[in-house]
Amino acid sequence: MKRYQDDSFALHTDLYQINMMETYFRDGIHKRKAVFDVYFRRNPFGNGYAIFAGLERVITYIKELRFSESDIDYLRNEVGYDEDFLTFLKELRFTGTIRSMKEGELVFENEPLMRIEAPLAEAQLIETAILNIVNYQTLIATKASRLKVVADGDPLFEFGTRRAQETEAAIWGTRAAFIGGFQATSNVRAGKLFGIPVVGTHAHALVQTYRDEYVAFKKYAESHYDCTFLVDTYDTLRSGVPTAIKVAKEMGDKINFKAIRLDSGDLAYLSKKARIMLDEAGFTNTMITASNDLDEATILNLKAQGAKIDMWGVGTKLITAYDQPALGAVYKLVSIEGKNGEMADRIKISGNPEKVTTPGMKNVYRIINRETKKSEGDYITLEGENPQEEKTLTMFHPVHTFICKEVTDFDAVPLHETIFDNGELIYETPELTDIQKFSNDNLSVLWDEYKRFLNPEKYPVDLSPKCWENKRVLIQEVQDQVRRNRELIKNWKSE
Amino acid sequence: MKRYQDDSFALHTDLYQINMMETYFRDGIHKRKAVFDVYFRRNPFGNGYAIFAGLERVITYIKELRFSESDIDYLRNEVGYDEDFLTFLKELRFTGTIRSMKEGELVFENEPLMRIEAPLAEAQLIETAILNIVNYQTLIATKASRLKVVADGDPLFEFGTRRAQETEAAIWGTRAAFIGGFQATSNVRAGKLFGIPVVGTHAHALVQTYRDEYVAFKKYAESHYDCTFLVDTYDTLRSGVPTAIKVAKEMGDKINFKAIRLDSGDLAYLSKKARIMLDEAGFTNTMITASNDLDEATILNLKAQGAKIDMWGVGTKLITAYDQPALGAVYKLVSIEGKNGEMADRIKISGNPEKVTTPGMKNVYRIINRETKKSEGDYITLEGENPQEEKTLTMFHPVHTFICKEVTDFDAVPLHETIFDNGELIYETPELTDIQKFSNDNLSVLWDEYKRFLNPEKYPVDLSPKCWENKRVLIQEVQDQVRRNRELIKNWKSE
Repeated sequence: MKRYQDDSFALHTDLYQINMMETYFRDGIHKRKAVFDVYFRRNPFGNGYAIFAGLERVITYIKELRFSESDIDYLRNEVGYDEDFLTFLKELRFTGTIRSMKEGELVFENEPLMRIEAPLAEAQLIETAILNIVNYQTLIATKASRLKVVADGDPLFEFGTRRAQETEAAIWGTRAAFIGGFQATSNVRAGKLFGIPVVGTHAHALVQTYRDEYVAFKKYAESHYDCTFLVDTYDTLRSGVPTAIKVAKEMGDKINFKAIRLDSGDLAYLSKKARIMLDEAGFTNTMITASNDLDEATILNLKAQGAKIDMWGVGTKLITAYDQPALGAVYKLVSIEGKNGEMADRIKISGNPEKVTTPGMKNVYRIINRETKKSEGDYITLEGENPQEEKTLTMFHPVHTFICKEVTDFDAVPLHETIFDNGELIYETPELTDIQKFSNDNLSVLWDEYKRFLNPEKYPVDLSPKCWENKRVLIQEVQDQVRRNRELIKNWKSE
Repeated sequence: MKRYQDDSFALHTDLYQINMMETYFRDGIHKRKAVFDVYFRRNPFGNGYAIFAGLERVITYIKELRFSESDIDYLRNEVGYDEDFLTFLKELRFTGTIRSMKEGELVFENEPLMRIEAPLAEAQLIETAILNIVNYQTLIATKASRLKVVADGDPLFEFGTRRAQETEAAIWGTRAAFIGGFQATSNVRAGKLFGIPVVGTHAHALVQTYRDEYVAFKKYAESHYDCTFLVDTYDTLRSGVPTAIKVAKEMGDKINFKAIRLDSGDLAYLSKKARIMLDEAGFTNTMITASNDLDEATILNLKAQGAKIDMWGVGTKLITAYDQPALGAVYKLVSIEGKNGEMADRIKISGNPEKVTTPGMKNVYRIINRETKKSEGDYITLEGENPQEEKTLTMFHPVHTFICKEVTDFDAVPLHETIFDNGELIYETPELTDIQKFSNDNLSVLWDEYKRFLNPEKYPVDLSPKCWENKRVLIQEVQDQVRRNRELIKNWKSE
């Protein structure tokens, strides 16, 4: 099997995308403008909201999108496309327009996270990579936000690299966790690439190397000013904590005895006992960090038990989104240019009602109540509508539509930014700390009932009457067409 | 926050590794030889075995391991290490010896998958990346092998890129799936990099673009010789399948009507009906591919229902290892050079018996019964022992040790290969197809009771008497030491 060099992401896609591009190319419709929406059908983890992430990496992917020589050689030699199509691929650059939620934005079920308007072949090619990136990063930012809600102000550290699903999940996952509210990471490469603060002191291996906890802590303290001692190698309360205290006393102000770290055992009990020991020794400012397969439920439970834990290290359960390791965001065609140059909306119907797509080029607005400053829900319109011009908006419960409310005194805040405009990158990615702040500030527009981590209320995501009517008409048209087709097919059979 | 360029994997590690390296460096013990084992404590998915994968990428990581200028700048400016230590890092290359299981090897709980012997600072640095790579790839190879056992000879395709946890999981995951027995992937980049066969035809978007299934299939057929038609866009049996048949008849031998693909609905029912329709139309060689959130349980159930499915596309559940998205492999110090230049074994004890490590430099043998050609279990020895010289081996049940057997007529096959020898790469990675074949052939040494995907028997992984005695002595020594320390600590308190 011949192997080619790894010099481009253009082939980071499913083969069927390229096969469809070829069909469009042969049929001469590959340059027709198509509109695709990216959205997910259900919030992950049963959460009341999600936090959008992945845009920065999508931007790099789109900006650098081109088929390298080796991509073309591979497609020619191993897959076997014809030269005219290969020439088309070789010259392909992204020339479309992308509108997107900003990273850190609060997002919800069934609303377009990104809207891609591009020549059909280009729009088809980029589906797979966009979903690969946005699905994972949005999942982790959301998981981090859940943890942040539960940690209730305590610093959270991302410690999951060794359990991450390969190397890029480790670093982009930790960036997404930072967006969702984490303070720091243990992954040094993530610190280097993104400027995320890095944390970490020593592992059990240090104690094993010196065998003796006292020697190990002493050696560590002699080589580092800031000291967090991992105290559970032998016996947390009878050896680890007293040894840490002994070394800290001996070192005096030559070190900053920042924290002890508990990584096994009964964290509630051990932290309470350790707190007393530290306080009695005068180390009232020395904090307690805990880790060991933590997630939202364990942190909530530890807090309920009065655990004296100041900082939380979260690894496996965050970086793999252990309880739901995939977000099911999809990429669906909603409109396409016809022969006459006019756009024709497209729908996909399904026996499963939640899988029916919403046709048309759309925008998403957040409806902020001017009095409470809280969000009344999100509102999806067709291109050209401006909900701010409406006097009254009727917002429906997303499932039980008999429940609805009328909103009058509101700001309709558009949520999409233009990222690429006819192929040109016009968006400047904010500083990561600003994205984190934006994400955090966003949460304040949500009522608490949407934020609780168990059984939150359903947040309203509504279609404007025009958008809904457009959908209804297209459902009807497709059903009629399917019926006509069935008649046709009966005739084939009797031929 | 300053950001640095992504030009090396040297910082793809936890900060505490570098902090410990600094302590060893300051203490002058950073060049002492240390031995670490990589192993996991429990087979993933409740499976009876795992399939080792990740070595190729670990080799590249180790071979290219060096701190770039930008790594050093980052550590100097943002973390703040001193120049002498930074100079040491800058000059660091891997100079140790790595022995490892081969990719595709059957591996089990509590046996060393890799053994790293290297100067302490080097061995410490590489822990995180090795675990990151081996944990994920071994997990996916094992998941793929479970699916292969259930698919019982049917071709399996990896379709998960859009749900993978970022980009590298998609491609290294699909390579691991190939090792575990998958035939092909939809990810073109994985095809390009690894030579894995790529598959895929068209998506629902093609039908949506043309609106009409007949036109869409016809256009696809006019541009591709091999045709697999996706038949579930509108109505599988009343529209999709008859339309595919109609187009195939019209195209005649201008196309190869390879397959139809079902991607929703009742796959058992639809496949049986579609099979009859295809057969009646004379397309008895046209196959049926199914996809839609498949995993071991759904494939087994579909087969039990007599589904007429010939090929299986597996996405999310494979590429994220959905039911257990992390393998808990660890990296533990087992021996270290003392002042006198002699190696001293190290153990980590724990209140949790399964977390006690096995000290010493060890080798792993597979004990093959010469008569049955089946494996009697794996046998772990200390360096220097040769089980082939023993007349009789006593093999114990891994948990219930009162169950044991005596093995006499056996081959003791060593499982570790030397990959790096004092820093020099001496191992040549086999062709991927050979790794897949090796993995598949390996399964034949296992009795069926270890291979069933639900409640398999526990496969014996035994320690030689010397290895066990060494462990017992070290447990004793550490317990004595901990006891002495506690006395010391009591004295500190009364001081």
